[in-house]
Amino acid sequence: MKCKDWDDERIHKQFDFLLELDKEKEVIRRTPLHDNSRFEDDAEHAWHLAVMTMVLSEYANEEIDEYHTMCMVLIHDLVEIYAGDTYAYDEEGKKTQKAREKQAAEKLFSRLPKDQGEKFLALFQEFDEGETPEAKFARTLDNVQPTMLNNASGGTSWEENGIRLSQVLGRNRNTAEGSETLWNYSYNNFILPHAESGELKDDLGDKKPPRQ
Amino acid sequence: MKCKDWDDERIHKQFDFLLELDKEKEVIRRTPLHDNSRFEDDAEHAWHLAVMTMVLSEYANEEIDEYHTMCMVLIHDLVEIYAGDTYAYDEEGKKTQKAREKQAAEKLFSRLPKDQGEKFLALFQEFDEGETPEAKFARTLDNVQPTMLNNASGGTSWEENGIRLSQVLGRNRNTAEGSETLWNYSYNNFILPHAESGELKDDLGDKKPPRQ
Repeated sequence: MKCKDWDDERIHKQFDFLLELDKEKEVIRRTPLHDNSRFEDDAEHAWHLAVMTMVLSEYANEEIDEYHTMCMVLIHDLVEIYAGDTYAYDEEGKKTQKAREKQAAEKLFSRLPKDQGEKFLALFQEFDEGETPEAKFARTLDNVQPTMLNNASGGTSWEENGIRLSQVLGRNRNTAEGSETLWNYSYNNFILPHAESGELKDDLGDKKPPRQ
Repeated sequence: MKCKDWDDERIHKQFDFLLELDKEKEVIRRTPLHDNSRFEDDAEHAWHLAVMTMVLSEYANEEIDEYHTMCMVLIHDLVEIYAGDTYAYDEEGKKTQKAREKQAAEKLFSRLPKDQGEKFLALFQEFDEGETPEAKFARTLDNVQPTMLNNASGGTSWEENGIRLSQVLGRNRNTAEGSETLWNYSYNNFILPHAESGELKDDLGDKKPPRQ
């Protein structure tokens, strides 16, 4: 065993942060697992998006750096440890979401050594702003993954919350910006069938986008 | 909305695989969350290791490719969807673990398009063999993360399973190969205190490695 070779303050801060992140496993989302046995949590969701990055990056509209995208999806929901999960269709909660999450990001990432805290904050802001090719693709995955699980679990999450097709399309208005292919796939295979079978209220009728 | 531009068979296989992976969230480990509220699952564990890669890669003994390491930790336990989790101190289970996991890897990764299936299988095998700098570091994180959580949750997982210090050191015999710093940190801060306070049976006495 080698002699101690770490900077005490730096490594303690890093492990303190990594332990704090364990709370991400206790932030519950509104998306059910495929078998409807329970809702998934933020850590599971972020893991799923990271593996989706490995499998689906070939469908990005623009060339993306996979590693950078993966870092973004891994940490994009960390602020919810302090700010809580805001359901995609909670209009009241969304009014204060930005401010709550900004404050949470500063509180959480300041636990890290300064250089790493700044890196994490920048990644979170990049995801939040959604302007780089990587952020656009990360946000596409963040929207497509719950449609995959909602479909697999029979659309009950939409049904129980009385969600309308127009709301789902509103929520997904930018999903094609990261990947037209993945948005089309999600719309055709995960969303439209539930507007047809009724778990999702079809309030658009003939005005809805056709199956591709 | 653009016209359909995907290869049906390829993208269906990819989404079928990604949905099958949802079962990773239902493979329960023996490591408790920090507050001892429940055990973590494989997806949460893999996510934690991926973020640890972002924060702790500076302590790798050798230069590592962070992206490659991250891909490995994200998928290293997928085989447990079919092969189940084998507890680190289950000597009977470990006898058949290699064979069960090899079969599971072939079954699971063959759901992907061939090129991606081969990539995932190679990553899993690289982790399993533990010979590259990235695999060594990934395995270090895989061993250090549960000691962090066992410590935070009061060492009860060791206590309830009647684990001895010599077993923990045996389990960690290669942990320093990926990072001497992280192994020393884990030994000093997460393991040794529980041998001193008794949750971990100290069967080594004066023969145990000293605090660094």
